[in-house]
Amino acid sequence: MSAFETILTAPTPVAWVEVAAEHWRPLLTDHANCEKKAASTALALIFAYPEDTALGVALARLAREELRHFEQVVRMMQRLEMPFERQAPGRYASALRRHVASAEPRRKLDLMLIGALIEARSCERFQLLAPRLPPPLGAFYTDLARAEARHHELYIEHARANAGDSDWERRLRELAQVEAELATSPDTELRFHSGTLSAPFTPGSRRGALAAATALIS
Amino acid sequence: MSAFETILTAPTPVAWVEVAAEHWRPLLTDHANCEKKAASTALALIFAYPEDTALGVALARLAREELRHFEQVVRMMQRLEMPFERQAPGRYASALRRHVASAEPRRKLDLMLIGALIEARSCERFQLLAPRLPPPLGAFYTDLARAEARHHELYIEHARANAGDSDWERRLRELAQVEAELATSPDTELRFHSGTLSAPFTPGSRRGALAAATALIS
Repeated sequence: MSAFETILTAPTPVAWVEVAAEHWRPLLTDHANCEKKAASTALALIFAYPEDTALGVALARLAREELRHFEQVVRMMQRLEMPFERQAPGRYASALRRHVASAEPRRKLDLMLIGALIEARSCERFQLLAPRLPPPLGAFYTDLARAEARHHELYIEHARANAGDSDWERRLRELAQVEAELATSPDTELRFHSGTLSAPFTPGSRRGALAAATALIS
Repeated sequence: MSAFETILTAPTPVAWVEVAAEHWRPLLTDHANCEKKAASTALALIFAYPEDTALGVALARLAREELRHFEQVVRMMQRLEMPFERQAPGRYASALRRHVASAEPRRKLDLMLIGALIEARSCERFQLLAPRLPPPLGAFYTDLARAEARHHELYIEHARANAGDSDWERRLRELAQVEAELATSPDTELRFHSGTLSAPFTPGSRRGALAAATALIS
């Protein structure tokens, strides 16, 4: 059983995988944004909890890895001659953050648990997409799945270390329910962490998908 | 001539070097803070200018390097058994940022130039301190000086690329005047980028300095 299966309460719907595998090109822009967001979230946690130096060092390493992934995705997009495109983030991360407790020490625990859930979902989706994508991207996504599995474990480890007397596993299950709802219910945008599209994907973003796939393989 | 000497308009006063070389231990806390601040500033620039993917990739690499330095400083502090200590930042970075133009494209140019100046000053001070510190820290600071010289060049290169028709070298000299004033005039706190202390360093922070030096050498 993969690491992510231990905490996610619902698998990604087949319908999401079908659409994402076909429209992986517009999804790359969101993927690049997710990598830099993951790095900035880790950095924000380092600033929020400077007294926890073990966490600080672990998150600095994690942020470095996410930044390297960001560079890799951007270079892949440059190779595909994909022009820069501004893309609003989906509902996923902001909706999850609304469930974070405002008072400490519950806040820190929630932030660790949500970090673990996001990494677990990312791991699952990279694994699901990898065999469906053109070779260089597929192999890259397999590597990313391994990295996200490690990141998920890191957040879980620090959640456990910061749980005190609280029932952190019960809290994890609560937040996992919220996460599963966001990752599986009808959604208006195709994003890396979106739910299933409530309407067919608009064809505008498909422009050049075949040419892009050819460029990536060649 | 070192890279930093090409843009800094005043050298660090000997008085700062004397105090910093004696009180390198409390300065390590500020140094760790500076490394994570450098990473977060680079990340903020990546978010501010997502359309400039060449800058994004360059700054992601720079941020990774600053984060690795942060990890190295924290590990050095752990080895010295230095307890975590909250330390307010000095006046330097916030005062410099007050001179950044609010309108684009001048804002982006100013941010690149200020980045270059901060890296140049860091480079100069690491070079000045390196021969005065216990061996592992001295060697580490020599390595850091090389990294900061590269970062300074990176910011200058992107300032030049974003200067358009403006006289970016004149603007650099203006900002360098502000920077030099902050780095050399009387200051109330000993920080990595502070001016010369206006009063003798308070002895509280010297506690254990000799023991720390011994631990670092052994």
